Amino acid sequence: MKIVVDAFGGDNAPLEIIEGCVLAINKHKDLEIILTGATEEIKKILNGREERISIVDAKEIITNNDKPTEAIRYKTDSSLVKAYDILKNQEDVIGLVSAGSTGAVLAGAIMKIGRIKGITRPALAPILPTKLDSDVIIIDSGANVDCKPVNLLHFALMGSAYYSIVYNKPSPRVALLNNGREEEKGNELVKEAFPLLKNAPINFIGNREGGDFMSGEVDVMVADGFAGNALLKGTEGAVGAVLSLLKKSIKSHALSKIGALFMKQTFNELKNRIDILKKHGGSPLLGCKKLVVKNHGSCKRFNILSSIEQTMLLHENKLIEKIENSLSLLEKAENND
Amino acid sequence: MKIVVDAFGGDNAPLEIIEGCVLAINKHKDLEIILTGATEEIKKILNGREERISIVDAKEIITNNDKPTEAIRYKTDSSLVKAYDILKNQEDVIGLVSAGSTGAVLAGAIMKIGRIKGITRPALAPILPTKLDSDVIIIDSGANVDCKPVNLLHFALMGSAYYSIVYNKPSPRVALLNNGREEEKGNELVKEAFPLLKNAPINFIGNREGGDFMSGEVDVMVADGFAGNALLKGTEGAVGAVLSLLKKSIKSHALSKIGALFMKQTFNELKNRIDILKKHGGSPLLGCKKLVVKNHGSCKRFNILSSIEQTMLLHENKLIEKIENSLSLLEKAENND
Repeated sequence: MKIVVDAFGGDNAPLEIIEGCVLAINKHKDLEIILTGATEEIKKILNGREERISIVDAKEIITNNDKPTEAIRYKTDSSLVKAYDILKNQEDVIGLVSAGSTGAVLAGAIMKIGRIKGITRPALAPILPTKLDSDVIIIDSGANVDCKPVNLLHFALMGSAYYSIVYNKPSPRVALLNNGREEEKGNELVKEAFPLLKNAPINFIGNREGGDFMSGEVDVMVADGFAGNALLKGTEGAVGAVLSLLKKSIKSHALSKIGALFMKQTFNELKNRIDILKKHGGSPLLGCKKLVVKNHGSCKRFNILSSIEQTMLLHENKLIEKIENSLSLLEKAENND
Repeated sequence: MKIVVDAFGGDNAPLEIIEGCVLAINKHKDLEIILTGATEEIKKILNGREERISIVDAKEIITNNDKPTEAIRYKTDSSLVKAYDILKNQEDVIGLVSAGSTGAVLAGAIMKIGRIKGITRPALAPILPTKLDSDVIIIDSGANVDCKPVNLLHFALMGSAYYSIVYNKPSPRVALLNNGREEEKGNELVKEAFPLLKNAPINFIGNREGGDFMSGEVDVMVADGFAGNALLKGTEGAVGAVLSLLKKSIKSHALSKIGALFMKQTFNELKNRIDILKKHGGSPLLGCKKLVVKNHGSCKRFNILSSIEQTMLLHENKLIEKIENSLSLLEKAENND
């Protein structure tokens, strides 16, 4: 399997990106990687470890300050655009991994790769832990801030297909983010989206509130990218705030400091559970004709390893075909109406 | 000071509501309370403690299952409608406290009391802790799920006036909830709202993300009620989820259990900090001609005490006049343009 990786996207690029690729190459004997970026720098880091890794030179870097569509159009010698060109032109390259600017990754996917037929808005669907043993995804988490009801329907279909692969769960529980559970609740957007989700070929469990996000009763939370982003970031911020308050309080009480020494196992467990997003690598951009996995800008080598493995898993389990199938099921149902 | 309290709103009504009133009466010698609800039941609970407490009989109760506007219109003998009638007709009654259905409290405020001139949408602004020593409010948190840019401007003005009173801070830092900090970020609504907030007589610090909500750098987070609700509930849910994961992990490790014994102080501190919303009572409904404070449905006697005290504080510090003043400042600025 061949995957292209943008070696110069993200805060810790190129070192952590390249080291992540080396980890993946060592772990998966059927994997080949194409790295895009400044050849000399990449070679220096690889330092001879070039087995099944090839390099395509790119002299420019796209940053968060670049306007996404302009960057894709004009920075043709950037590591991201070169990576997209490879994904587009080489049929055997199954996916792209980048930790670069979200906007540019999104723009590149639409401009260079194109959308699955019927999908107007690709979406990002990061994974978060719940308070139980399950995980939850939110789709969309910020790629589409102004949505129509049909976009939410597509998010639901794509999120359901994605979750079912990652967690090997045939009928994940899909909920619509709302400010109350009752069917008549919500803003105009979700009120119109509700019947669409209700009639879709998914396991739709109805409206759920932000407070239900980490409760464990939802697998796929569907939202417009604006509210979804507020929920995702708010959740991450709140988790961080609680841990920060905990740390501060422990530091200020001698007895608590002693207690904390005994609680190493618990703190490690908590950290592992909360870092689920990192464990799973980034978030795939769902709705494109080929696999694109976007990583956190701050990601490290293990996150890159995870993103590469996620790309392999989604390829093996035919994510894109599954999304296409659920769209055609929907179309058939509509034609029968 | 005279306040009317809906004795039959909330999950723990009437007992906790009435006990909260008794606490307030004992603490504040200049306070008088009018309780609305079934006289016999109230009398039984008061059991002679009727000093400065009067009762206005109401035989009906409005529940969460009632349609708000219909309930206000037709359940004329309900504890909430009776309370609103008293607030409306008795000039010396300075405010109303209820833990009943949010929708009905909101509908009653608009239908019975009316809005401050210029304000089209009253809003709820609950308080949350930050990871520093400060607190943050979110406005609107769910009363208005479809908003126009001017509504967000009003939320900003009202939230700023409210925060400045509660925390005795002349220029609270007001931010606009967005999916990024850059001025050009956001959905159509916040893009249009941004310049309005920028030119308003408030300390507007720009766009902030959901992740900044509990960071301590924002005092007043402005959002439409849909995204605001997602952020508020998501934050509450995440805090609860972390604590639940922590508890579960402690229980499953013998050493952690021992550690937890030493950490009592820290756990209490954390609990107190997180329960700030309860400490502060409910959330005022900002934008009405008279003070209305809505409590959590699950509130207990101490929350009712807090809500009553909050009503007194907001009255003494002339919240409504302050909102009116900032509206007229705004109008002047517009006329000078």
